[in-house]
Amino acid sequence: MPSVRNARVIFNEIPTDYPLPGKHVVYDTSKTIDLENVPLDGGVLVKILVLSIDPYLRRMMVGRDVQNFSPPFELGQPIVNYGVAVVLRSENPAIRKGDHVVGLEGQFPFQEYAIVHDFSTVRVVENTENIPWSVYVGVLGMPGETAFYGWTEFAKHKKGDVVFVSGAAGPVGATVVQLAKAEGLKVIASAGSDDKVAFVKSIGADVAFNYKTTSTREVLDREGPLNLYWDNVGGETLETAIEFSARHARVIVCGNISAYNTKSPYGVKNLQLLIWREITLHGFLFDSLRPKHAAAFFRTMPGRVASGAVRYKEHVVHGLENAGQAILDVQEGRNFGKSVVVVAE
Amino acid sequence: MPSVRNARVIFNEIPTDYPLPGKHVVYDTSKTIDLENVPLDGGVLVKILVLSIDPYLRRMMVGRDVQNFSPPFELGQPIVNYGVAVVLRSENPAIRKGDHVVGLEGQFPFQEYAIVHDFSTVRVVENTENIPWSVYVGVLGMPGETAFYGWTEFAKHKKGDVVFVSGAAGPVGATVVQLAKAEGLKVIASAGSDDKVAFVKSIGADVAFNYKTTSTREVLDREGPLNLYWDNVGGETLETAIEFSARHARVIVCGNISAYNTKSPYGVKNLQLLIWREITLHGFLFDSLRPKHAAAFFRTMPGRVASGAVRYKEHVVHGLENAGQAILDVQEGRNFGKSVVVVAE
Repeated sequence: MPSVRNARVIFNEIPTDYPLPGKHVVYDTSKTIDLENVPLDGGVLVKILVLSIDPYLRRMMVGRDVQNFSPPFELGQPIVNYGVAVVLRSENPAIRKGDHVVGLEGQFPFQEYAIVHDFSTVRVVENTENIPWSVYVGVLGMPGETAFYGWTEFAKHKKGDVVFVSGAAGPVGATVVQLAKAEGLKVIASAGSDDKVAFVKSIGADVAFNYKTTSTREVLDREGPLNLYWDNVGGETLETAIEFSARHARVIVCGNISAYNTKSPYGVKNLQLLIWREITLHGFLFDSLRPKHAAAFFRTMPGRVASGAVRYKEHVVHGLENAGQAILDVQEGRNFGKSVVVVAE
Repeated sequence: MPSVRNARVIFNEIPTDYPLPGKHVVYDTSKTIDLENVPLDGGVLVKILVLSIDPYLRRMMVGRDVQNFSPPFELGQPIVNYGVAVVLRSENPAIRKGDHVVGLEGQFPFQEYAIVHDFSTVRVVENTENIPWSVYVGVLGMPGETAFYGWTEFAKHKKGDVVFVSGAAGPVGATVVQLAKAEGLKVIASAGSDDKVAFVKSIGADVAFNYKTTSTREVLDREGPLNLYWDNVGGETLETAIEFSARHARVIVCGNISAYNTKSPYGVKNLQLLIWREITLHGFLFDSLRPKHAAAFFRTMPGRVASGAVRYKEHVVHGLENAGQAILDVQEGRNFGKSVVVVAE
């Protein structure tokens, strides 16, 4: 069998602000692969079906000198992230041809085909609920796990608590909104367009507003004080949430989209309120909490998603050639719902 | 018996920056008291011996519109704080003439004599160790309790941890340095003069530096990364400590002296590192933790102080007429050790 195209998306240049397709992130079709004969050396050949586009990818596009949670992307090499793939050939006895595998820790390169050797962070998904594969990088993947683990570990909610969620239309935020509502709490949610606000209301938020047209400060002054703030944004929004926090409030610091694409992030000036209000800020990454909470997540969430008890919104982009634009759109907030690239059906 | 003078220190005006004696804080000798005949109405007449001067007093000199941990000082009324007093007359069966009482929750007004009705936060101290009374507002009072409770609750230290303490010559910081050294940890400590640095070294800090003449950033870059930062300062020091924090670092946010006397506090710009390094910031007030840890504190700390295992430094000011200046000196960092006003011997 002749070789076929193995298109890929390369990390080409470190951006100073926003990552531009064609410049910092480049689509490349120069490679081919012989699917029948390429040596696997004990590994597994997969065809990539879905790749995840997440805000944190920007944090991986930094120099090697930046102290990071994991090594940043390598210049000249494909971008890497969570994804779902189908197995074409396997020399690993635990994994069979036709299996669907989900990469957990940025396992899959942005290419059409890949050979995987490290299975410590890849799992085979049976998907008995017949949920679309893209959902396994969304509410049933890293973002859903992030919401579930952070909430389970840090929320410490009590009856009557008021919760504020920023970035509430994204896959993490929307899941948090629904976890909070499932506990009967009052949920205030912000998002960046009227469409997103309508979605956030439809999944249960008691108060939802477009932060671009409505003052966060006025909403929180009226609807607070906050017992819990789930922060996907950082900067001025975090400062305002702290200002309207109640005594003993918890802030779960999950994302900081306001700071990813600038060299001069907003400085938060009211941190002395952490003392007077006895506020705790928890920064976290989902994989640290996975060993503790993964069993509960995988036991309960697929069923909740299948039954519609937990709802989600996807922003689907078709074709690897559009991945660079999808990455930029997420940084600029133009996606509506979890951004996924469908590489192959 | 004729009436005697009952001098006091009045909160006269809300400061915009530093609280100035004679302007915002005024010494007043216009009042008298008849110690024999003043009606007690079931209360206790005390002679104030020692009053505590603390950084947080500045936070009490704000308008009534500021949402605070407790109501701010009342204009025209005496400043109120921790202190030690001796009982002159008592109509409370639990308290006898000659008892020494310690006010726990800002119980004592800044006056020579006071009548106390609420004994929920006053305790009689036997002082079997014969420790100077002033120490009961220092390392055996609120500051020592603050250090002990915050450390016990939040430090979660492991063998080999590196701890940074700012404001390390103050009564809270110095106690934290000694608690950390008692656990065998490496302690980096900063203070605002060479004298203070020498003291901090003498109580065990492995690395101590004068932040006014040595770059905090250079010291932390060389001696870190930090697993634990005890923050008495806030602002730029907090930002630098976050920058040089290790994965899963804990920051105990105890004081924010850099922000108390300014309308434009420093904005901390690198809070996204809370996520990538999975850092937790704990703001706290000691009285919330008292129910949990007070028994351990009062069982162990007087003995450790009496034996010299825990050392302290005091900055003693004599006479209520000098309290206003003492308050300003603490805000400007001119005290060296725990600031106390000895009202009467």
